[in-house]
Amino acid sequence: MSTAPTAPATDAVRLARAYLSRVAEPYPAALASLVADVGPIEAADRVRAGGVSPSVTSQTSARRAEEHARADLDLIARRGGRLVIPEDEEWPRWPFLALENVAARRCGGEPLALWVRGPHVLADVVDKAVAVVGSRAASGYGEHVAGEFAFGLASAGLTVVSGAAYGIDGAAHRGALGAGGVTIAVLACGADIAYPGGHQGLLGRVAREGLIVSEYPPGVTPARHRFLTRNRLIAALGGGTVVVEAGRRSGAKNTAAITLALGRPLMVVPGPVTSVSSVGCHELLREGQAESVSSVAEIVESVGRFGDDLATRPAEKESDLGAPQGEAMRVYEALGKRNGVSDEAVSVESGVPLDRVRALLPELELAGLAMQVDQGWQKLEMR
Amino acid sequence: MSTAPTAPATDAVRLARAYLSRVAEPYPAALASLVADVGPIEAADRVRAGGVSPSVTSQTSARRAEEHARADLDLIARRGGRLVIPEDEEWPRWPFLALENVAARRCGGEPLALWVRGPHVLADVVDKAVAVVGSRAASGYGEHVAGEFAFGLASAGLTVVSGAAYGIDGAAHRGALGAGGVTIAVLACGADIAYPGGHQGLLGRVAREGLIVSEYPPGVTPARHRFLTRNRLIAALGGGTVVVEAGRRSGAKNTAAITLALGRPLMVVPGPVTSVSSVGCHELLREGQAESVSSVAEIVESVGRFGDDLATRPAEKESDLGAPQGEAMRVYEALGKRNGVSDEAVSVESGVPLDRVRALLPELELAGLAMQVDQGWQKLEMR
Repeated sequence: MSTAPTAPATDAVRLARAYLSRVAEPYPAALASLVADVGPIEAADRVRAGGVSPSVTSQTSARRAEEHARADLDLIARRGGRLVIPEDEEWPRWPFLALENVAARRCGGEPLALWVRGPHVLADVVDKAVAVVGSRAASGYGEHVAGEFAFGLASAGLTVVSGAAYGIDGAAHRGALGAGGVTIAVLACGADIAYPGGHQGLLGRVAREGLIVSEYPPGVTPARHRFLTRNRLIAALGGGTVVVEAGRRSGAKNTAAITLALGRPLMVVPGPVTSVSSVGCHELLREGQAESVSSVAEIVESVGRFGDDLATRPAEKESDLGAPQGEAMRVYEALGKRNGVSDEAVSVESGVPLDRVRALLPELELAGLAMQVDQGWQKLEMR
Repeated sequence: MSTAPTAPATDAVRLARAYLSRVAEPYPAALASLVADVGPIEAADRVRAGGVSPSVTSQTSARRAEEHARADLDLIARRGGRLVIPEDEEWPRWPFLALENVAARRCGGEPLALWVRGPHVLADVVDKAVAVVGSRAASGYGEHVAGEFAFGLASAGLTVVSGAAYGIDGAAHRGALGAGGVTIAVLACGADIAYPGGHQGLLGRVAREGLIVSEYPPGVTPARHRFLTRNRLIAALGGGTVVVEAGRRSGAKNTAAITLALGRPLMVVPGPVTSVSSVGCHELLREGQAESVSSVAEIVESVGRFGDDLATRPAEKESDLGAPQGEAMRVYEALGKRNGVSDEAVSVESGVPLDRVRALLPELELAGLAMQVDQGWQKLEMR
C-alpha cells in the first residue's frame, strides 16, 4: 500500500475520510486496501451504496448509514482540532511506514485519518519523538523516573509520546510539559473525550501545548480493544519506546511487543526486583528483547537516529581485569603506612626480589606514592 | 598445564607446596610452570638452591629462605584447617580448568595450593556453587536482595561463594548460613585472619559451618593486589557470578570481568536507576555482558549446568500483540454493563455486522461473558 498522497487534500477528500473513519472500527484492513486502490472518495461512495466486497461489507455494513462527517469536522474544529489525512503535508508519513511490514500488520496498518487537537504540526513534532509508557498501577519510583526522563527528553528537544493513562503515562506527559516541551497524547477514544476523567486538566493542557491524537472520531468511548489498536500508534509515532514500569500483564507489554514488530528500539527502565511494578521490564530485559536505559542520555543513544549531536557516549573504559601481578603495586602495598620499612623487609613482604624493589622504590617516589624516611620507605596515599 | 594429580598426596608433597605457597606471591606463572614440569618437591628443592630460571628467581628470591612449611601446616591444623593441594581428592579440579584459558590466564592460573578451614569437602560443595558478590557500600535494598537470594540458593542446595567483605558479601554469607546451607568465604589474606575486623563473628561461623578458602598462607595480611588475585578464585569456584550491587568503579566489576574471561554466566540484579549502588550492574546489562536476574529461579536457570530438576521455566507465554481485531471482543465491549442492549445497538457500537453480532452473542453467552435480559444483552465480567 502506498503512503504517498494520491490526491490533493480537498474538502471532498477530507469529508470522505471523516466518513470512513466513523464507518469502520479500526483497524479495517480490507477497507484500507480499497481506499488505497480507488481513493477515499470512490471508496466512501461504494461503501454507502453497499457495492463492496464481502470483507469490506463486514467492516462497514453496521455503521454505513452514519453520515456524520460534516458534523464531526465542525465539532473537532470547535474543540481547536482538525482531521489530519494522508493527503496533508503534516501526515506522519515516515513514522507510519513501519506499520506496513508483515509483523506490524498483525496490529493494524496506517490509519485512514487522525483526529488531532493542538498547536503543533504533527509530522514536525514526531520527527524526533520517544514513546514513554508504563503501568497505570505505577510506583512512586516509576512515576518519578517517568517524569524525570520525560522532562529530560523534552529539554533535549524531543517529543514525548504516551497514552494519557494514570500512572506512568500521566507522569510522562507532565514531565514533558514541565520542561516546556511537546508531548503527544494518543487516545483510545475520541479526541474530544477526557479519559480517564481524572486527567481532564492534564488533557486540556496537552491540547493547548502539545497534541492530542486519535484514530477515533469525536464521541467514541474507550473500549478494551481500542487500547490495543491505539498502542500501535504510540509505538509508530515514537522513534523508540521506553517502558518505565510494567507488571507481568501490563498493557505496556503490548506496546513493547508492537515496538519490536515495528523494528523500533525497545528500552526498559530497571527497577527494584522486589517491586511487582518492574516485573514486566525485567522479563523483557532477561529475554533480551529490550535494552536497559538508566538515563536520558542512554535513551537518546539507543534511539540513535536523532544523531550524534545529542548522543554522548561514555569515555572508553579501562579494563576491569586490573593488573594484580604488578610488582610496583606489590612493593607499594608493602610500604609502611606510618613508619619507614627497609628495602629488605619490603622485598620479603612483597615477594619482589631485592634488586627489583631497589629499582621500583625511586619510581614510586617519583610517582608521589612513596617517600624515604629515617627508617626506610613510607607509603603515600593514592589520590 | 595439566590439572590431573601427578603424584600421591604424600606429606613431602604437601610440605613442598606449603613452602612454595609462602615463597611466591600469587599468581607466580613461571613457578607454576616449573611445578607442572618437575613436580612440587623438585621445584621446591630447586627454588631453595637458587637453581631456577630468571623468571622463577624473580618470583621466589625474596622469600626463598622462609622455611615455614611445617609451622604453617601445624598452625592451620590448630585453627581447624588444612592445606588442600592438587594431589588431593578434594581439589576442585573441574572448576579450576576454566582458569587455564587464554583470557583467564591474565588473572592468574590454578593456585599452587589452598589453605582451607571448615567441615566440608571442597570439591563436593563447589560442584553446585554460585558466587554472590557486590559493593561494600551496599544499599539496604542490595543487602536485602543478597540475603534473600543467598538464602534461596542455599535452600535449593547450592553453595554460595563470596568474599567476606562488608555489604553484599556479608549479606550473602549470612543468608546462606540462615538457610542452614553451605557458604564459602574466599579471603585475600591468610585463612586464619579475621578481615574485615567487623566480620570476626561471621567468619568464625563460616569456618564452623561452611568453608574459608585462601591462596595465602597463615598470617598474610590483606593488600589491594591480593583482592584482585583473590577475585579470580571467587569467579572460578562459583558456577556463575551474581553481582547484586556495584557502583561505577566497584571491585565487584573486576570479579564480573574475570567471570566473563572464564566463560561463566555473569548475572546482575537490576535496581533503581536512581541508586548509585546499581550503576555498575546497569552498565553491565546495557553493554550486553550480563543477564538480568530477579529471582533465585532465574539464577538457577542462568547457571544452567545444575540441571533441569532445579530450573523451573515459566510457562510458555501468550503473545502480547493481542487480538485487537477480534469481532467477539468488540461485541463483548459493546454490551451494557448494567442494562441490556439490543443486538442492533451492539452492531452499531461495535462496528460488527448485525448477522455476525447475532451469531456471536450466543457464543459469548456460552462462554459466560454475556447474558440475555429483558432489554437485550448484558455483559458479564471476565474472571
